Amino acid sequence: MFSGAQISLYPMTGDFVGVIVGALGALDPYRDRLRVETDDISTLLVGPPEVLFPAMRDLFAAASRTSVHCVLSAAISRGCPGEPDDAICNSTQFDGPIPPLTERHAAALAAVATAPELGVHAVAQLSLYVMGQGDHMDEIYGSIGFLKASGTFERSKHFATKLSGDAGALFSTLEQAFCRFGPPQGHVTIDLTVSANSPSLG
Amino acid sequence: MFSGAQISLYPMTGDFVGVIVGALGALDPYRDRLRVETDDISTLLVGPPEVLFPAMRDLFAAASRTSVHCVLSAAISRGCPGEPDDAICNSTQFDGPIPPLTERHAAALAAVATAPELGVHAVAQLSLYVMGQGDHMDEIYGSIGFLKASGTFERSKHFATKLSGDAGALFSTLEQAFCRFGPPQGHVTIDLTVSANSPSLG
Repeated sequence: MFSGAQISLYPMTGDFVGVIVGALGALDPYRDRLRVETDDISTLLVGPPEVLFPAMRDLFAAASRTSVHCVLSAAISRGCPGEPDDAICNSTQFDGPIPPLTERHAAALAAVATAPELGVHAVAQLSLYVMGQGDHMDEIYGSIGFLKASGTFERSKHFATKLSGDAGALFSTLEQAFCRFGPPQGHVTIDLTVSANSPSLG
Repeated sequence: MFSGAQISLYPMTGDFVGVIVGALGALDPYRDRLRVETDDISTLLVGPPEVLFPAMRDLFAAASRTSVHCVLSAAISRGCPGEPDDAICNSTQFDGPIPPLTERHAAALAAVATAPELGVHAVAQLSLYVMGQGDHMDEIYGSIGFLKASGTFERSKHFATKLSGDAGALFSTLEQAFCRFGPPQGHVTIDLTVSANSPSLG
């Protein structure tokens, strides 16, 4: 199943190029398991979710440690029927039939409980979409139920759910929401915004 | 039908607050037809597409005229079954049965042809999602066919389509893709990034 993201990093400083270039080293441990292509609007990451989410997390955390107000924006996708398969995306976690929602909810919470602590506080906003089936809202409500119990839930908003917490717990929560809801081979996407060091934060 | 967006404006400068505050006046002509609520990660705009897209366009264009590298990111949605209806969203354009794809394609092109020219060059990247039906890819391919003929098409990318051109044509193209594809009362979303003044542009 093809999976990956178009991501962009926005450091709110005149030296945004310096902050981005300085943070790119955070991707090095993942480069052999990701396809990476950059143009003037975003960077494509192709790979399985268990590599993709930690890579986005470490890139965002590295940029945010400069104390500059930084935002990571991402269009994340798995199972799009229009995309060719790619061996780099192979992951066993989508094998087999889909367990009941309650089991997936518990497994997702257990995964978040073991997330590393990065020492970078951030807020995140996500919209999760499940395509190609009549009951897509059941899976969306299932993921929202998990998000509310995840320990990072801040509040529901129109079109989105807002989270806050350490970047480790945040990106683990996002990965679990992405992988555990919607059919294992289904088309699931997340429209994601993660922000650190905003002067608007109370 | 409830419609709107969570939007964020990212000026890549240390004076990002000044650029944002300076651009906010561009929303004034639309404020009586939009609900606007801001927090530390995004601004909610609730209103019909024919107000929403010009409002986003003028906000983005005002910020970009500073010559600072600016990005507008938006999660745009209509017809989400989980959202309450709101009178401010009333729009007659979704009344009646859905015309054939070829008719919608022609109507969308005619609308883009009359878009105003703003004198702000930008690139845009969008992922359009149609939820809750088995043939969602037909509507997505229909919208991609329109995008390719719109005059703003740059190229297809994984997970997204990239456009470039004057902000007037760009936002008109985005509005047409959002309104004319997917069922009139269906749940359709766009994950949008618009960028101007990037130093990476060749």
